[in-house]
Amino acid sequence: MPSSNATPEASQHRTAPSVNALAERPVARLIDEAARLGVALTRTANGTVIADAGVDAPGSVDAGVLIARICMGGLGRVAVRANFDAAPLWPTMIEVHTSSPVLACLGSQYAGWSLAASKEQTGGKKFFSLGSGPARALAVKEPLFAELGYRDRHDRGVLVLEVDRLPPPVIIDKVLQDCGLAPDRLTLIVTPTHSVAGTVQVVARVVEVALHKVHVLGVPLDEVVEGAGSAPLPPPAPDGIQAMGRTNDAILYGGRVHLTVKHDEVARRLADTLPAANSRDYGRPFADIFTSFNFDFYQIDPALFAPAEVWVSSLESGATYHGGRLEGALLQDQWGGKSVAP
Amino acid sequence: MPSSNATPEASQHRTAPSVNALAERPVARLIDEAARLGVALTRTANGTVIADAGVDAPGSVDAGVLIARICMGGLGRVAVRANFDAAPLWPTMIEVHTSSPVLACLGSQYAGWSLAASKEQTGGKKFFSLGSGPARALAVKEPLFAELGYRDRHDRGVLVLEVDRLPPPVIIDKVLQDCGLAPDRLTLIVTPTHSVAGTVQVVARVVEVALHKVHVLGVPLDEVVEGAGSAPLPPPAPDGIQAMGRTNDAILYGGRVHLTVKHDEVARRLADTLPAANSRDYGRPFADIFTSFNFDFYQIDPALFAPAEVWVSSLESGATYHGGRLEGALLQDQWGGKSVAP
Amino acid sequence: MPSSNATPEASQHRTAPSVNALAERPVARLIDEAARLGVALTRTANGTVIADAGVDAPGSVDAGVLIARICMGGLGRVAVRANFDAAPLWPTMIEVHTSSPVLACLGSQYAGWSLAASKEQTGGKKFFSLGSGPARALAVKEPLFAELGYRDRHDRGVLVLEVDRLPPPVIIDKVLQDCGLAPDRLTLIVTPTHSVAGTVQVVARVVEVALHKVHVLGVPLDEVVEGAGSAPLPPPAPDGIQAMGRTNDAILYGGRVHLTVKHDEVARRLADTLPAANSRDYGRPFADIFTSFNFDFYQIDPALFAPAEVWVSSLESGATYHGGRLEGALLQDQWGGKSVAP
Repeated sequence: MPSSNATPEASQHRTAPSVNALAERPVARLIDEAARLGVALTRTANGTVIADAGVDAPGSVDAGVLIARICMGGLGRVAVRANFDAAPLWPTMIEVHTSSPVLACLGSQYAGWSLAASKEQTGGKKFFSLGSGPARALAVKEPLFAELGYRDRHDRGVLVLEVDRLPPPVIIDKVLQDCGLAPDRLTLIVTPTHSVAGTVQVVARVVEVALHKVHVLGVPLDEVVEGAGSAPLPPPAPDGIQAMGRTNDAILYGGRVHLTVKHDEVARRLADTLPAANSRDYGRPFADIFTSFNFDFYQIDPALFAPAEVWVSSLESGATYHGGRLEGALLQDQWGGKSVAP
Repeated sequence: MPSSNATPEASQHRTAPSVNALAERPVARLIDEAARLGVALTRTANGTVIADAGVDAPGSVDAGVLIARICMGGLGRVAVRANFDAAPLWPTMIEVHTSSPVLACLGSQYAGWSLAASKEQTGGKKFFSLGSGPARALAVKEPLFAELGYRDRHDRGVLVLEVDRLPPPVIIDKVLQDCGLAPDRLTLIVTPTHSVAGTVQVVARVVEVALHKVHVLGVPLDEVVEGAGSAPLPPPAPDGIQAMGRTNDAILYGGRVHLTVKHDEVARRLADTLPAANSRDYGRPFADIFTSFNFDFYQIDPALFAPAEVWVSSLESGATYHGGRLEGALLQDQWGGKSVAP
Repeated sequence: MPSSNATPEASQHRTAPSVNALAERPVARLIDEAARLGVALTRTANGTVIADAGVDAPGSVDAGVLIARICMGGLGRVAVRANFDAAPLWPTMIEVHTSSPVLACLGSQYAGWSLAASKEQTGGKKFFSLGSGPARALAVKEPLFAELGYRDRHDRGVLVLEVDRLPPPVIIDKVLQDCGLAPDRLTLIVTPTHSVAGTVQVVARVVEVALHKVHVLGVPLDEVVEGAGSAPLPPPAPDGIQAMGRTNDAILYGGRVHLTVKHDEVARRLADTLPAANSRDYGRPFADIFTSFNFDFYQIDPALFAPAEVWVSSLESGATYHGGRLEGALLQDQWGGKSVAP
């Protein structure tokens, strides 16, 4: 039965996976289990599904975890974890790992697609949201995709909008047009910053934030071959600015990332320059920083957007470098968690 | 292709999921993988499946984890985890999370259905067991279900019995009758307290125990929107009283729970009053307490049944409160884990 | 509907599962998701699939995790985890659990099948690799299988080769012959020691290494009923000797295992004698030890191959014993992870 003239022959070469195809299964789960996840489903007359995970519907941590996986194009593992430390900084953690960090984080998860509509266009209030997730790679409206050399071609798509209302028809049409999708092949997921699911899906960006800073630092993206990380999961703050501050603080002061890169020099450099502590704005709660700049996001030092603590391993040397550290006291000051009884 | 007159319309409202329907998949796994899980399957003449996870069969940790998920009506995540602490209190932990804490823990997992049969009824020894898990919500024999406003209607059911023998026919018939199930649509799972699977499934009640105390404290149940927790997993004790004591100690002295509630006042109050340390009986191993009350369970202060440490987050304020603490020394005194060599 | 004359009757007894059948699903995933996992697939003229997870293809951590699960015959859970410790020894951990430790670890995962071919046989360089994983139990070439009383009979098989080149035809034929498999029913997975996937799948042997030492110590294997463990996951070292040293160090100095055994005397004895610290060679990096013995593996004290720290629970007494401890300083000296900035 065995044959001695068996000769190996190549039958498959590495092709980039479709982030929208890989997201189909978690999207189907989000829809099928909408009731238990606290997600309200709406369908436009043309069949586009809008999943409300925190506007009128309550959402949930489980919804946020599923949305985070969707956002990573099915290429990342995201989980809620208990911290077993005897005296933990925080009891509940978000854990992320991906073996496709560039594609999962920058090709899909990054909130890089600006979607805006004027009062005239909406027939009501003006609308703005950053779009994140797989459908960005269908629309390829961002220069980043040329750098990534990635464009997804798939007949279904899903986009996540971090905004506190459902998108108006003009925005839905724009997304459909730019993605080249039939209306009933698009799912839009809405997660307000101040919602439970919104908090989860933003904190789950701890590795993406690191990848984005790698890019800001001018390090070639194909250097990064593995990404893992964790950050504490706070409850949402009811106030919008505080909510945004809180998810940023979770990463800037509570996030830890472990990257694997190809070259030793890159590993050493990233461990040194990547941690948030390199920023001139580091050290105060994000909401304070944002307020001090009169809510002008673009005044904030871009170097601030990074995890607190970074470990970077090099495949070239096998060495691992370490920079930054968690600032537990700052988080507990902001979030509570102090004992009730003295 | 995109249409500008697309108008969102509601197509789904939130309905409570069926805990028995959601448990079908893990029940099918328990049955399919019975051999590797150490579970012995028995089928009555009428087709009711009895899964022995520790009476004559050895059971296993994996069986216990699967049974715990079944017990939570498919609405919770339960896992065995390694504690990575450099000098851990205990090396192996049970981790639980649910975004449906009230339904998963009180509507399903709580051991609230008393199933008793006299010697005359069994034709042998008298039988008593508390039933837990999804089928409780079919039978709705407990006043709790009126408070929950929940009743499951499904044509299959599963019930977990924490008892050291297989249920007699009279009990099987009672369950079938009360649940309105055809005999071949019921699965009964038996997990003795002193078995490996029994220990796992009881320790996995760490969040349920917190929810039950929330109820005892008179806090409206719809306050609690998320529940997560952990507790150390000891081996079973061979002696029945010690085994019961051990699983209780895992929660009372080693359990940590993080709840999210709607209102700030509730969060603060629960962090203060929920921890087991509020009980007059707190501080001694449970087996000692139980023995000192002459094995009369109802003499024990109900306030004792609670996790050691509690974190409660409020959606109203975004604040988190913290009460209680782990008592590692008490657990190690009871369970060992001291070094063999001096 | 319920019937009172229902009498339980045995309908299933415990039979050993087929490790090759249980591995089919993760093998199918490895093949289906080869592109995203960095795995290159090759098919011989007769249809044997060769999965290159680190020779010419890059592989990945995810590939390594999947291969580790395959290697345990589908009977173990393996995951990459973040270490939430405020000041962790190492940020990324491998976690393993199995409720079938003997079958998963020794019947499948152990690298016990020597596969060698001379220059004449290969028509090129001589070839040597240890085979691990499910197909060992089809070939049963090792005396160990008689002790285990286990032989798998299945028409598909999978074998893992820890080697830095693809196997020559003569080796493929030997495996097919010894396993009695049709060529298109065999999958061979190749994971070099110095590759990312290779590092993961070796570190994931932390429980297997403990089981192997249980065997070396002459303890009856059926004593061990549960196995769990963890070890830090370093990047691979580029050098072969260093790479081998590194994965060994992860277990010898960073591995922690929690076993459950039947008898108290065995538990006490294993906690005392199992930890790697019992070896005369303990205390130096493995690569140094190996070098000092002129790269003669068989000069190394077999007692060295064990986890650093061991917890052993006894079902007989319910007691748990503890021996050994982690040597974080040694690992950090070897692997780095010291801060970049002073």
